[in-house]
Amino acid sequence: MITKGERTRRRVLERCAPVFNTKGYSGASMSDLVQASGLEKGGIYNHFVSKEQLALESFDYAAGIMRGRFDAALAEKDGALERLFAVVDVLGALVEDPPVAGGCPVLNTAVESDDAHPALKERAREAMSGWLRLIGRLVKDGKESGELSPDADPRSTSSVVVATLEGALMLSRLHDDPAHMYRAVEHLKRYLESLEEGE
Amino acid sequence: MITKGERTRRRVLERCAPVFNTKGYSGASMSDLVQASGLEKGGIYNHFVSKEQLALESFDYAAGIMRGRFDAALAEKDGALERLFAVVDVLGALVEDPPVAGGCPVLNTAVESDDAHPALKERAREAMSGWLRLIGRLVKDGKESGELSPDADPRSTSSVVVATLEGALMLSRLHDDPAHMYRAVEHLKRYLESLEEGE
Repeated sequence: MITKGERTRRRVLERCAPVFNTKGYSGASMSDLVQASGLEKGGIYNHFVSKEQLALESFDYAAGIMRGRFDAALAEKDGALERLFAVVDVLGALVEDPPVAGGCPVLNTAVESDDAHPALKERAREAMSGWLRLIGRLVKDGKESGELSPDADPRSTSSVVVATLEGALMLSRLHDDPAHMYRAVEHLKRYLESLEEGE
Repeated sequence: MITKGERTRRRVLERCAPVFNTKGYSGASMSDLVQASGLEKGGIYNHFVSKEQLALESFDYAAGIMRGRFDAALAEKDGALERLFAVVDVLGALVEDPPVAGGCPVLNTAVESDDAHPALKERAREAMSGWLRLIGRLVKDGKESGELSPDADPRSTSSVVVATLEGALMLSRLHDDPAHMYRAVEHLKRYLESLEEGE
């Protein structure tokens, strides 16, 4: 059974995650968070010990939505290539349908936190490691089943797939033009096809 | 002749650009900038009308270093593929030798400013457009000279090259591991070779 306190906490995270994802951790002021959450400042501090704690849990909330999308996309797919395409499509959708407003929470948190916020950086690193491992495992499975070439490199493929899509998201958001992402998705699908055994 | 005022301005930009590039525009406080510049707050405002103006000119300073690197790398190279490789290497070097501390100023500014700071976003967009146009022009020249295949697409190539390298920079900085960038550079060089006529 979900208590009233848990419902309030959840609602605050739903409402504050887009604030952090659009303005950044440093750019999101307490007054922005008060306004978004609908609670008084003291009410927020009843549920979260600090702005940092609220930011960390807001990140987890947004990362959890992405995890759900990967699970849903993969549940319907068979075969390594089809599953890799599904991962590309989930990340490609970040341009038009981010998990919360403001784009990719992992990219945003990674870029803001890399020099400045160790606890947030650690959160972003864990989420990103999960995505890289997922892609690496799909490549490994595809090699073992014989669908992908023995030369396919799980680590290289996972770096290239994530780098290309996150970079394309940045370009599309900067130029307000989804074409960069469409080109990245197309490029990666041709690249992944080139990893098929016998190609 | 360079006046004392111009020398001071230049020194402030050299010292403040790394502060903005590591902490972000919102994260860089006036006291950070006072400390880095060695001037009093009033001294900074004698040279720059606002924190935003200082941030914009700090961005231009860092973007100018990148422009100088592209010019230097291209001056020594002949042929489309060799010139495209030179561009890849300049961006690949961002991991180990950023123009100012904190990684790529265009990536950092793009991600922080896309929802929040229109004037900074415009600056990042102009710099990024220059990089995309440079790559597109090299591909176009290579098609015209017959070195690259008629099927090579200047816009797709420029989106993919920049996206992959900027995304790989983010991964390498997040994981404190240059391997993501090395894999991206390797992948792009194979991809660019596949655009050669007769490949």
